[in-house]
Amino acid sequence: MAVAERQMRIQASLAPFLRGVMDAVPLIGDPDACDFLAGNPEVPALPGYVETLQKWLEPQNRRWFAYGMPDPRAAEAAAAALADELGIAFEPDDVMLTRGAHGAMALAMATVLDPGDEVVFISPPWFFYEALILGAGATPVRVRANETTWDLDLDAIAAALSLRTRMLLINTPNNPTGRIYPDDTLALLGALLERQSNEAGRAVYLLSDEAYSKILFDGNTMRSPARHYPRTLVVHTFSKSALAPAQRLGYLAMPPTMPDREALRRGAMSASFSTSNLAPDAVMQYALPDLLDIVVDMNKLQLRRDRLLEALRSAGYQVQTPEGTFYLLVRSPNDDEGAFVGRLAQDKVLAMPGSMFEMPGYFRLSITATDDMVERAIPVFEKAISDVR
Amino acid sequence: MAVAERQMRIQASLAPFLRGVMDAVPLIGDPDACDFLAGNPEVPALPGYVETLQKWLEPQNRRWFAYGMPDPRAAEAAAAALADELGIAFEPDDVMLTRGAHGAMALAMATVLDPGDEVVFISPPWFFYEALILGAGATPVRVRANETTWDLDLDAIAAALSLRTRMLLINTPNNPTGRIYPDDTLALLGALLERQSNEAGRAVYLLSDEAYSKILFDGNTMRSPARHYPRTLVVHTFSKSALAPAQRLGYLAMPPTMPDREALRRGAMSASFSTSNLAPDAVMQYALPDLLDIVVDMNKLQLRRDRLLEALRSAGYQVQTPEGTFYLLVRSPNDDEGAFVGRLAQDKVLAMPGSMFEMPGYFRLSITATDDMVERAIPVFEKAISDVR
Repeated sequence: MAVAERQMRIQASLAPFLRGVMDAVPLIGDPDACDFLAGNPEVPALPGYVETLQKWLEPQNRRWFAYGMPDPRAAEAAAAALADELGIAFEPDDVMLTRGAHGAMALAMATVLDPGDEVVFISPPWFFYEALILGAGATPVRVRANETTWDLDLDAIAAALSLRTRMLLINTPNNPTGRIYPDDTLALLGALLERQSNEAGRAVYLLSDEAYSKILFDGNTMRSPARHYPRTLVVHTFSKSALAPAQRLGYLAMPPTMPDREALRRGAMSASFSTSNLAPDAVMQYALPDLLDIVVDMNKLQLRRDRLLEALRSAGYQVQTPEGTFYLLVRSPNDDEGAFVGRLAQDKVLAMPGSMFEMPGYFRLSITATDDMVERAIPVFEKAISDVR
Repeated sequence: MAVAERQMRIQASLAPFLRGVMDAVPLIGDPDACDFLAGNPEVPALPGYVETLQKWLEPQNRRWFAYGMPDPRAAEAAAAALADELGIAFEPDDVMLTRGAHGAMALAMATVLDPGDEVVFISPPWFFYEALILGAGATPVRVRANETTWDLDLDAIAAALSLRTRMLLINTPNNPTGRIYPDDTLALLGALLERQSNEAGRAVYLLSDEAYSKILFDGNTMRSPARHYPRTLVVHTFSKSALAPAQRLGYLAMPPTMPDREALRRGAMSASFSTSNLAPDAVMQYALPDLLDIVVDMNKLQLRRDRLLEALRSAGYQVQTPEGTFYLLVRSPNDDEGAFVGRLAQDKVLAMPGSMFEMPGYFRLSITATDDMVERAIPVFEKAISDVR
């Protein structure tokens, strides 16, 4: 076989995503398309974004683009911002700069996982969770969220834990359900993992993907499980807040309550060198303190969410009100959501079918589309549901 | 254990490098230091470098910083440049954009290696080879170069091959020896690997780290083993030619003669998603065609090499003439090269001890230091050797 055998299983896990992307590629190029597919920018760049990077490209010393340690200013600014956001006194040395949430999760997994370890993850998942777990040589164990509340199903998680469980991976605010896990649930989860670590005699880590921590509606606040469980590795990214995912920047952080912090810092360094999950490009590190202030306009986003929610419901769609994230999760009027999404695409409205993220019978709309796209799409949504009925 | 067990072995492989870095950190900050340590820029940036990146930060469309496929313009330009450089008709779809050579090697290993596979690498090695092999879950097998010619020792390589061998990793032009492997050697190596693949009934890949392909002296030309062995994965980077390693850009490329190219392309894509070895940042991709023309001044570099070679030899040092790369490999007048390097450091001349790269009794000097540093260092080199004698 030309390729590694493990890549076959990884490709199987990626197949629904890649198939969906391939289906969408010919449509995305259409300038008239109303694109609700990915959490992608609605404008070329947020105000100040380009100028900030251009400014920080100007060398201030001879070693500006040299090999070196991550920029301490960036780690300090990130730690301070994270402390402010989550109410936990993160230390700069415990903030590992990464290429977005994807890089942070790969780094966390390489740091603590050995072959044969199990990682429990929640379905519906992000597209790459299973691939990342397999890529780290570990075994993915899928647990379904509560299908009524979309909260964590703690009984199902407890049943999935084993002596080989090394990590639980959760995502809050959740893509695609829009759910922010309640503080009570996170407290109970922490107690569960504490018990499991003690019983197994080996630390179980909680990897908390908080990519949408700043994308909150209705005055909701971010709640991190790191406040309840010290062995939490939190994952943050600028890809959502600054809406520029192709310039990758994020971090993996440990709370000061994390046991064995010094060993984990060293482990993250060797994991970084041995998997090439190196720090972000220099200009992204230098710009980080300024980029903390460049955030998508949440008022505008909430108005757009409300406009689309109202229009969809008036037309007869069942759709949840997301507490955070960019996404509306909509029940397909037709159980074959692929056919329904295809019907929308004929009228140049691009939605993501649930088959891409383990949610058959649903489709996902990203409200990072423009207001103009929303207005043009509403009649299409109305017509499509009336055609089905 | 808080950290993955495999990280312990990776940390052991990195220990000599990290110890050397820790020793050097307090010295690097000294503005009077003559820094011959790493292949780092002598100037803040090459002419045009900053302006090029600033230009390509200006969005040309709404999707400028959005999620997307790698930029086809970048892959086309890279393939054309590589074809020109190596005399092989690379196709754009066979050029995977990566974050420098480090990212390219991690991607190649994730694509073809399974746990238990063996990777033969050459000593003296680059600092991260063993860590990368271990990070990919494979087993490193070390083979020493010919200690007289610093050419590949084909008999030793043949003896190290086994039915588990999946990859051979070589580096030409070689860091730290400065050797460009002769075409004859590469042809014999290709025949050896062809035989081994046939006997084992499984492809053995040749991973060719060509990071210094443009850093050639005395009119030498680059010779890639890809001309002799179709299962060669070539690794190129802009970190050396553009001297800006903290803005990471490079690629992994397959020649058109590579068997199973389509499977390898798919394998590289799933390897990329599953290890987060994603494409470089958008601005680096957009700038790639322009960056091909921004190359360190080789005339100046050769003059500096010659000045330093001549001065060291006049003072009584034994030193090879590098055919390429940034490095002079110098015999330490004192067998304890650590002590000798320490002696140089007292006079603010920073050299890299051979203990960091499996060359006890030697030290390495990077000629990316400035001309001024060279002139200030020469009397220190002269005094240090006369003190030992």
